Amino acid sequence: MKIISKPVKMQNIVRALKTKGNTIGIVPTMGALHNGHLSLIKRAGRQNDIVIVSIFVNPAQFGPKEDFSQYPRPFGKDAALCRAAGVDIIFVPQPRDMYPDNYLTYINVERITDFMCGRCRPGHFRGVATVVGKLFNIIMPDSAYFGLKDYQQSVVIKKMAVDLNFPVKIVACPIVREKDGLALSSRNIYLAPAERKKALSLYISLQNAKNLIEYKNTVSVKKLVSEIKKDLSGNAAKIDYIDIRDADTLEELKIINKKRKTVIAIAAFFGSTRLIDNIIV
Amino acid sequence: MKIISKPVKMQNIVRALKTKGNTIGIVPTMGALHNGHLSLIKRAGRQNDIVIVSIFVNPAQFGPKEDFSQYPRPFGKDAALCRAAGVDIIFVPQPRDMYPDNYLTYINVERITDFMCGRCRPGHFRGVATVVGKLFNIIMPDSAYFGLKDYQQSVVIKKMAVDLNFPVKIVACPIVREKDGLALSSRNIYLAPAERKKALSLYISLQNAKNLIEYKNTVSVKKLVSEIKKDLSGNAAKIDYIDIRDADTLEELKIINKKRKTVIAIAAFFGSTRLIDNIIV
Repeated sequence: MKIISKPVKMQNIVRALKTKGNTIGIVPTMGALHNGHLSLIKRAGRQNDIVIVSIFVNPAQFGPKEDFSQYPRPFGKDAALCRAAGVDIIFVPQPRDMYPDNYLTYINVERITDFMCGRCRPGHFRGVATVVGKLFNIIMPDSAYFGLKDYQQSVVIKKMAVDLNFPVKIVACPIVREKDGLALSSRNIYLAPAERKKALSLYISLQNAKNLIEYKNTVSVKKLVSEIKKDLSGNAAKIDYIDIRDADTLEELKIINKKRKTVIAIAAFFGSTRLIDNIIV
Repeated sequence: MKIISKPVKMQNIVRALKTKGNTIGIVPTMGALHNGHLSLIKRAGRQNDIVIVSIFVNPAQFGPKEDFSQYPRPFGKDAALCRAAGVDIIFVPQPRDMYPDNYLTYINVERITDFMCGRCRPGHFRGVATVVGKLFNIIMPDSAYFGLKDYQQSVVIKKMAVDLNFPVKIVACPIVREKDGLALSSRNIYLAPAERKKALSLYISLQNAKNLIEYKNTVSVKKLVSEIKKDLSGNAAKIDYIDIRDADTLEELKIINKKRKTVIAIAAFFGSTRLIDNIIV
């Protein structure tokens, strides 16, 4: 396994690999790898000759008051996990090489970034789209693998790739959960034991919502939001959003029925830790 | 020579060409080809196995009151010129295939697009950067050729390519002029004979400015602008801007001396036709 930090060197290595006819899969990450990431790596390995994992805590996607500086960076452990998973190359650039002095260019996906995590985290998706665009140009992958826990992110990246004609297939992969149902996240390590217990209300509220929809034929969004709020109350320190939207376009819905693929997405704070989760119904 | 209109088909053709080891040069144009474009095509031909000319009057880079609808589209003549020049493929997409319904993604190069043509034409460079990014992803060229007449555009595209790590070499080529000095432009055909004569004042004023700098060692920008204004007055219907800046960064200058590569750029109206020209000193 190679560990590469310079974008130009990475690009040259990839060019040589592609000339030999290799297909390339990229798993873009911010490190602090867990089984969710490993499921993406496995999928990439089954579908490509070469698997490249990028590890980059991207400053452009953090707000000024967010956890950029304390975001976990256990590089040694990440590298060992990648090696064990059969990763070919880790690309681990420095912020100054990705955003040198006088950096000026950003990719904006409009409208579908105005709500949900885009509303709570202004500039977040601009940072995500920009770094993913940069990684696509550096790694030139055939396929790119993203987890569905960041549901809006997966829709935004698909839209960016289609709109800008990136020659990359976007593969969105299922959420991986703890045994009790909590979605895996690199931020779960921030949770104190009591918060960890309360955070399970995210999963429970989504399951209850799903059951309600499956029991009834149609449910109003208003009713569903109030049920989810009930499940979260007393657990979440603060609900950031509960959004129920068309799963493909993120269009707002008023009524949910079984015919339309719908995403129910939640962001909530447990202590000072903001977690997100979602379910497709 | 092939003529391709669908982005996905173009991408598949390019993929096959690249697999065989061909290098690819793109000359992005809006058609209405003249000797300026042909000089780019020749240069691309000398440096690449395959030359692709894109012809696309890009709606995203025109303001609502600009000449998008009347911009010349002499496709038959353009195709004949390309064939004679040895072009391998013309890529001529439809606006609905480049910007389908619900198109949402734009590339912004900040700061260096706030002045000159960016100030006079809000959104212009967002449209330029976006379409060039799309063309890079569709054509996957090794090199891309742009004319220096659109000087700010060449700086913006270079910056975008570097910032977003596009694996494309940007080649900026000299302005081609009529015998009397008028810079070639697809918009010159808009000029009535009297306007055509007056438009020569662009070139004359730039030459005079150059001579003044070569004669003196340092000249203030204020002095130079007032000299250029004198040369244009009575000729241009309206001066849009006279800007004198660092030729690489487009940073504003107060003093010009021979040590620093400087661009003098002018935009002015002759009748209702807006023309631009520039000189590097």
